[in-house]
Amino acid sequence: MTKRLGVLLFPGFELLDVFGPLEMFGNLKKEIELVMIAESPEPTKSAQGPAVAIDATTADIPSLDMLLVPGGFGTREGVANQPLLDWIAAIVPTTEVAMTVCTGTALFARAGVIDGVRATTNKMAFKWVAEQSPKVEWVKEARWVKDGKFATSSGVSAGMDMALAVIEELYGSESAERLALMTEYEWHRDASWDPFAKAHGLV
Amino acid sequence: MTKRLGVLLFPGFELLDVFGPLEMFGNLKKEIELVMIAESPEPTKSAQGPAVAIDATTADIPSLDMLLVPGGFGTREGVANQPLLDWIAAIVPTTEVAMTVCTGTALFARAGVIDGVRATTNKMAFKWVAEQSPKVEWVKEARWVKDGKFATSSGVSAGMDMALAVIEELYGSESAERLALMTEYEWHRDASWDPFAKAHGLV
Repeated sequence: MTKRLGVLLFPGFELLDVFGPLEMFGNLKKEIELVMIAESPEPTKSAQGPAVAIDATTADIPSLDMLLVPGGFGTREGVANQPLLDWIAAIVPTTEVAMTVCTGTALFARAGVIDGVRATTNKMAFKWVAEQSPKVEWVKEARWVKDGKFATSSGVSAGMDMALAVIEELYGSESAERLALMTEYEWHRDASWDPFAKAHGLV
Repeated sequence: MTKRLGVLLFPGFELLDVFGPLEMFGNLKKEIELVMIAESPEPTKSAQGPAVAIDATTADIPSLDMLLVPGGFGTREGVANQPLLDWIAAIVPTTEVAMTVCTGTALFARAGVIDGVRATTNKMAFKWVAEQSPKVEWVKEARWVKDGKFATSSGVSAGMDMALAVIEELYGSESAERLALMTEYEWHRDASWDPFAKAHGLV
């Protein structure tokens, strides 16, 4: 059965946080339907400029099979946006898989949906994200962290490695390997590979 | 002076071909202005589903500092779209840097703008792309090829490596390294690194 993957957009989302993972998930057309979601129905402008068309507003979406929340400088406003956080808190319990990329993890943390969960985030903004909740078990050195149904990734390009790992778990190694080969992507399959934790002085 | 980078979209463009490079170029805000261009002003639907808002139509854009043309299954129609090819043929001579990702090279080839130029493309679709013009000096094994003002890249994720190489040439190594670090991207700096040529049986 086709799973519905909702992607939460907000002004100032980071382009590659969204479209790295969607390059992978979006090429599984029989398995996954993508839904671009935002609070407002107008095209949502990214941190880098380009704007993306919205398929449904948060008000229209009461449940999802899978959720992806990107980062970007828009998360700085996002952590103070109570209606957005309330939507996240309401939707996450309906999902089978709930993912964040980069500072998107700050929104999960602030919404209270990853209390007691092991999670990671962008290494440059690690301190700010971790301050959003002391109840999360923050992991400083990891390309991505899978804990139960949650998958949280490190900064920006790490979302592609996380997406392939989630695809491997759901649809098998062959699917993930085929996608990596097709997109000529050098997949980092080891979740503990993280030279950026050191580069950004976290370890 | 800010350079204007135009990105040519068409129905069925590949998401990461566009947003991998734009993650890099789009974070050089003082140096580069992004313009999303298509034949029609409506949001343009990607091969994976999500649609992107258009800033200007091809008719509105008579010149550009830089051009980026992605691939995707939409290039199969693109190579038979004479007005689109005519626009490419007219715009390329006005640019300082003209780039393709993946099967986007088929559009440059068919438009006749890379006759006698060394160029590469997607490794899975190499044969089809090379058939679009015998006048191009096709390079089977390369992550990307820079020849004069032209930069052509291998499939999908190779666009990010090409973008960083172009940024390095235009704005220096420090700029490119800073972007790779910020996006936690393992940049392949060697243009001859191409395990996918072998994986797809080209060499």
